[in-house]
Amino acid sequence: MATGRLYFDYNATAPLLADARSAMVDAMALIGNPSSVHAEGRKARAVVSGARDAVARLCGVPAAQIVFCSSATEAANHVLTPEFRMGRSPVRVSRLFVSAVEHPAMLEGGRFAPEQVTVLPVDDNGRLDLAALSEALATHDPESGQAMLGLQLANNETGVIQPVREAAEIVKARHGLVVVDAVQAAGRLPLFLEALGADFMILSGHKLGGPKGIGALVSAGEILMPAPLLRGGGQEKGHRGGTENLVCIAGFGAAAEMARGALAGIERVAALRDHLEARLRELAPDVIIHGASVDRLANTCFFSLPGLKAETAQIAFDMEGVAVSAGAACSSGKIGTSHVLSAMGADADLGAIRVSLGHDHTEDDVERFLKAFTAINTRRMARKRAPVAA
Amino acid sequence: MATGRLYFDYNATAPLLADARSAMVDAMALIGNPSSVHAEGRKARAVVSGARDAVARLCGVPAAQIVFCSSATEAANHVLTPEFRMGRSPVRVSRLFVSAVEHPAMLEGGRFAPEQVTVLPVDDNGRLDLAALSEALATHDPESGQAMLGLQLANNETGVIQPVREAAEIVKARHGLVVVDAVQAAGRLPLFLEALGADFMILSGHKLGGPKGIGALVSAGEILMPAPLLRGGGQEKGHRGGTENLVCIAGFGAAAEMARGALAGIERVAALRDHLEARLRELAPDVIIHGASVDRLANTCFFSLPGLKAETAQIAFDMEGVAVSAGAACSSGKIGTSHVLSAMGADADLGAIRVSLGHDHTEDDVERFLKAFTAINTRRMARKRAPVAA
Repeated sequence: MATGRLYFDYNATAPLLADARSAMVDAMALIGNPSSVHAEGRKARAVVSGARDAVARLCGVPAAQIVFCSSATEAANHVLTPEFRMGRSPVRVSRLFVSAVEHPAMLEGGRFAPEQVTVLPVDDNGRLDLAALSEALATHDPESGQAMLGLQLANNETGVIQPVREAAEIVKARHGLVVVDAVQAAGRLPLFLEALGADFMILSGHKLGGPKGIGALVSAGEILMPAPLLRGGGQEKGHRGGTENLVCIAGFGAAAEMARGALAGIERVAALRDHLEARLRELAPDVIIHGASVDRLANTCFFSLPGLKAETAQIAFDMEGVAVSAGAACSSGKIGTSHVLSAMGADADLGAIRVSLGHDHTEDDVERFLKAFTAINTRRMARKRAPVAA
Repeated sequence: MATGRLYFDYNATAPLLADARSAMVDAMALIGNPSSVHAEGRKARAVVSGARDAVARLCGVPAAQIVFCSSATEAANHVLTPEFRMGRSPVRVSRLFVSAVEHPAMLEGGRFAPEQVTVLPVDDNGRLDLAALSEALATHDPESGQAMLGLQLANNETGVIQPVREAAEIVKARHGLVVVDAVQAAGRLPLFLEALGADFMILSGHKLGGPKGIGALVSAGEILMPAPLLRGGGQEKGHRGGTENLVCIAGFGAAAEMARGALAGIERVAALRDHLEARLRELAPDVIIHGASVDRLANTCFFSLPGLKAETAQIAFDMEGVAVSAGAACSSGKIGTSHVLSAMGADADLGAIRVSLGHDHTEDDVERFLKAFTAINTRRMARKRAPVAA
């Protein structure tokens, strides 16, 4: 990094990939509106079409099943709705089930009324309680409408991978709908919608090295679709009004193409993260690494240090030249307690530090991080030995 | 233009200004999430903040009254809603009035139910019928909730300027709300929200030389605000969830700054357009220039040629190397009849060609357009003389 700083916060946002940047710069030179009929419009439309193909390949669906949105948050608000259409016929969804560790964009329930949303418990590792899901579904009255499950593929704070396929089977047995938030999994896990057994998937461009401000709603078919959230000029086959974000779509497409290839290198990232965690345990035997005993994203480590509040540690890392986060990046820099830690029964007041790596990180980067960690941890231990002087 | 083509479709989308491009390229180098607490996050946040200041200056409001959205369409769907909040107290809006010539993003009524939307007639020039507005408001029951007027500052097809200030006074006398769609007016008319007497204004980045995929909801205060459309991570002070579109916001800010300065050059654009129209009338005495007798945007000319369908003419211009449009650019290249022409009582089947200039066009560009027009018009006249052979 040219700044001499170390950026270990890829789950908040990943730096723009060179290919994405290049695609965006090329798109900036195009002057047409993708909806225009003339040559300039057609050139712009071709870029949108190429990017749609790339995102579709990443998810193993035909391009017609990708609706570009301005963010995964928009995609979540689009798909989490009681109003669906099967072709032209209305389909009613009467209840949304979400896990307690979902991202706020899912947890807030989109267009469902608060009383239509049921939050399901997770275990100590933050994994959805499948028995609780079954029980909750058993109490759902299908006469009122379909049930919908909103579940993340991997948690943004812990990296813990959810039992999506198993949960989807339970929901499907009751003819419900499954929406998978794959935002953090993209580029780190395979995303094939069919293999997950889900009906819809949401994606964000900037978590996989594309630009911020672009996402997608991926559907398992073209017939059953949510009522449009943004009504207007009929873009995206009527599913989403508003002039297409040409530059960001171009960057998203290029990043999606890279993400497909990046999966092959994920073992190397896992080795870096595992080495980092092994060293954390040596340097600070009392460190708590959340979700370490279950399947997690290869790039994520979420740890708590007794006696050192995460927000304090985050600032200390920043001053040591290392960018990490204390939980998620949302809410305009405001730091609150992590609802993920709370749901897992962990100490949310203490908080936890999230380290999230990228495919371009090296062993040297991990060593630099450990050096900063050692400095911060040494101060923590000194305070522990002399609590009165703290 | 490097391609040798002539782009006369600025109302569909304007080419990216050099300053906007440069701001975007700079923003691409930043690696943080604007919501992150660390140095990388703060740098990204500063870019968003600077752009917000620039857009605020364009509208004459404090920066805190700008909510960035992914498009004017999103801003319209955000603000056209029955659910408002005055601080924490709910405020109900029970009816939306819109003119018949609004953009589809306004005309479809956002989050209002279809039965809550009243479409108001316009005169032959497409200007809102103020008497009809008064009459309609008189029948509105304020006990059911407030009334809202959604009105464009200038029409996207004809360029005709609406009597916003007068309409706002009528609505305000009945304690209603006024939303101005200023998308096409930006950079072409002053946009001061207070002078317009409106409560909210919507803007689009790409119509003023910024990128596609970014817009803003501008409010006259911070207290009365629509219920969020995108619920999630609490960005934009809780008004709009979703990671900020850093690159497009940077470009929008730069374009907004340029748009403020560009107003001084609008007389030159008007002179070009007026010359173009004078020549059209000489070359084709039967040409119909819509709205020519009333105040219009300086850059827009919307004309019909008897005997030549607009969609046919549009393709002919494209083949002559000139990009113009037949009505608006929406709906993925599908050409339908113009609801604007229909509302004005004009021949919507015949349609009309929209020529929309930019600040960078020259007299030579107008001459090139007139050359293409002459070729197309000569063929039209030949067909008119020999209709059987057509």
